[in-house]
Amino acid sequence: MRLSARNKITATVTAVTRGEATANVVLDAGGVRLVASITVEAADELGLAEGKQVIAVVKASDVIVAVSD
Amino acid sequence: MRLSARNKITATVTAVTRGEATANVVLDAGGVRLVASITVEAADELGLAEGKQVIAVVKASDVIVAVSD
Amino acid sequence: MRLSARNKITATVTAVTRGEATANVVLDAGGVRLVASITVEAADELGLAEGKQVIAVVKASDVIVAVSD
Amino acid sequence: MRLSARNKITATVTAVTRGEATANVVLDAGGVRLVASITVEAADELGLAEGKQVIAVVKASDVIVAVSD
Amino acid sequence: MRLSARNKITATVTAVTRGEATANVVLDAGGVRLVASITVEAADELGLAEGKQVIAVVKASDVIVAVSD
Amino acid sequence: MRLSARNKITATVTAVTRGEATANVVLDAGGVRLVASITVEAADELGLAEGKQVIAVVKASDVIVAVSD
Repeated sequence: MRLSARNKITATVTAVTRGEATANVVLDAGGVRLVASITVEAADELGLAEGKQVIAVVKASDVIVAVSD
Repeated sequence: MRLSARNKITATVTAVTRGEATANVVLDAGGVRLVASITVEAADELGLAEGKQVIAVVKASDVIVAVSD
Repeated sequence: MRLSARNKITATVTAVTRGEATANVVLDAGGVRLVASITVEAADELGLAEGKQVIAVVKASDVIVAVSD
Repeated sequence: MRLSARNKITATVTAVTRGEATANVVLDAGGVRLVASITVEAADELGLAEGKQVIAVVKASDVIVAVSD
Repeated sequence: MRLSARNKITATVTAVTRGEATANVVLDAGGVRLVASITVEAADELGLAEGKQVIAVVKASDVIVAVSD
Repeated sequence: MRLSARNKITATVTAVTRGEATANVVLDAGGVRLVASITVEAADELGLAEGKQVIAVVKASDVIVAVSD
């Protein structure tokens, strides 16, 4: 399956915090810390746990650009 | 200014494609290609052009996790 | 590839409106009209054109629920 | 009230999973399963429960297009 | 129609910049400048033009919180 | 730090509802009630509590425009 989403970052799961509805999945992408908030259902279905290899996918319209003053 | 957004990726602008309303800003983040779709107004205001150092900011709720089959 | 995104709707492309940066892709999902705004780069890379079979993917956190008064 | 959001899908609530802050609302849209993650406050205010008729609303910029390889 | 989206800000259109696919709609909300990027189709359908009274609607999961250092 | 995000609304925190993963932060922006759903981690890191002065930041592509019928 190919996606229109332009941002695909290879990463490893380092932690998963589960609530009743939402899970925060912490990722390590070559030393950069990323966090994905997804449904608990998705976290379970994908078998997300420490050490799992994943891809963080982000749509271009969801990326904000910041510059230092 | 500190942000609730959990994902902050240091990157360099490699290209900017401008339409009338939207600009697609292509970034290089340590070898990973990223794309941000922002308003042309913002691209101008931030002075985005090839070589500019920026931070790509993404809210945790905008990150999808994908796993290979 | 499996995705954490919970919404996957099978559809057919009925039209593509291209700007310089953004393309609006109109879809027919079993009689329901859908529209996706993506980068022109993605529309080209995926070969989107009238009649193409696709899947519209939406993250659960991007779905608003509305009720009639 | 009319909305700029281009995607409006008629559906029926089939389940609601409530956490402290977020509720995942599962919908059936003519056989297609959808999930919306909204605030618990909104789920309560709209009276969302199994059998309720709703409209799933999604902004065009939040739709990713996927194609099979 | 009632919406799960938690943020509804009354505003007046002050300008519309149209591209081929996307329109940036500038709003004045009691002295606060807002911008909405929507499809040109939506801008036309809603008759958006200077002076029009509208409501800016934002999902809670799309709001980032920033604090000064 | 300057941001491409076009919408920046000064506000005061009036309440924080914490789940395990997500916190809903209620804001007062000159009489307009806003809600931001962010990670609990971010709410803690930013020290969000009643009375705190913040800025609600929203990307232009996340703003829906509504008009009355």
